[in-house]
Amino acid sequence: MAKNPTNAAPERRARSDGERTRQAILETAVRLATVEGLERLSIGRLAEESGVSKSGLFAHFRSKERLQLATIEAAREVFVREIIAPAEAASAPRERIEQLCERFLSYVERLVFPGGCFFAVAAAEVGARPGPVRERIATYQRQWMQLLERNIAQVQASGLLDDAPASQIAFECNALLIAANTAFVLHGDRTALDRARYAIRARLRQPAEAGA
Amino acid sequence: MAKNPTNAAPERRARSDGERTRQAILETAVRLATVEGLERLSIGRLAEESGVSKSGLFAHFRSKERLQLATIEAAREVFVREIIAPAEAASAPRERIEQLCERFLSYVERLVFPGGCFFAVAAAEVGARPGPVRERIATYQRQWMQLLERNIAQVQASGLLDDAPASQIAFECNALLIAANTAFVLHGDRTALDRARYAIRARLRQPAEAGA
Repeated sequence: MAKNPTNAAPERRARSDGERTRQAILETAVRLATVEGLERLSIGRLAEESGVSKSGLFAHFRSKERLQLATIEAAREVFVREIIAPAEAASAPRERIEQLCERFLSYVERLVFPGGCFFAVAAAEVGARPGPVRERIATYQRQWMQLLERNIAQVQASGLLDDAPASQIAFECNALLIAANTAFVLHGDRTALDRARYAIRARLRQPAEAGA
Repeated sequence: MAKNPTNAAPERRARSDGERTRQAILETAVRLATVEGLERLSIGRLAEESGVSKSGLFAHFRSKERLQLATIEAAREVFVREIIAPAEAASAPRERIEQLCERFLSYVERLVFPGGCFFAVAAAEVGARPGPVRERIATYQRQWMQLLERNIAQVQASGLLDDAPASQIAFECNALLIAANTAFVLHGDRTALDRARYAIRARLRQPAEAGA
């Protein structure tokens, strides 16, 4: 009784503590993966870093692959919270796509993860290694491109942007974002972030052809 | 005598065999690093993959870090041979910069390395890990950007390109190249290579302001 002084059902309480622990472990895992890579993220390595025993981690994740997949989900939640959700609150299509790009660059610049964008690192790292981890990263990468594309098509539909294929413009904007991330992490230099801002703004403000 | 039927000095012959072995080992190391990452490239892992004993590899490289640095040098030689040297043979500045970009995309498309561009993978992987390996990758990355920049400035000097800072245009072209590489490896889709070709051509043909 001393350990459970409230009236909350003990079983529920235990689950909730477990959830908090799992969340804290996954935060460590995401940070670690952006610095050392998803491939080095094993139950043993995470035990060293998180102070949780290997058997405790094994109870949570069962295998290295499940740990990697859970880490991707945790990184995805941060990506949605930091970038997608706030940008989608903007009502005008051009503001929305510009916010998506700016919030990405800000998330890199503020070092939300110490090794830069989790998904940029992971896409480069696992690209040539078939399996469920690559599939998950490829799926989120495709969803991100589709989100950019959908928002760009809406700007075009309002007559505020040239009529190059939206997928082409999305490819160009994403390329600038990822290059800014890599250069910022590698050289520790904010110039790359500003170069991306400049080029994205120019790209998203190419006027529609007169009379189109 | 049976093992040395020619008149070549045995010592010289041994060195030359050693060089050939070293070269073959490093080719395996570069291929391995583009798929599994530079960090996983240890003497043990390379022994498994190359069929050379750990002690043999240790005699060549002495440590994991020296092996990683030698692998970077071997990849650099391929990069120069495949991309930089042939492009630099072009006499006109715009042809030279367009060739640098096209030869990069062709080297990705032809799977010169199974995991795509060695330096793109390595920059994303080691960006957040201080040390000699990161410094070497950062140096080659800077040299590549300077090469693009110098060639772009020459196109501008001939009055054939708008007057945005050459470093800005180089950043944009490189971003498109790296994004094409990552998407091609991750999704196995050539569309990304063509999107990069289209955008780079458009960027390198933005006319100089009239009267500038």
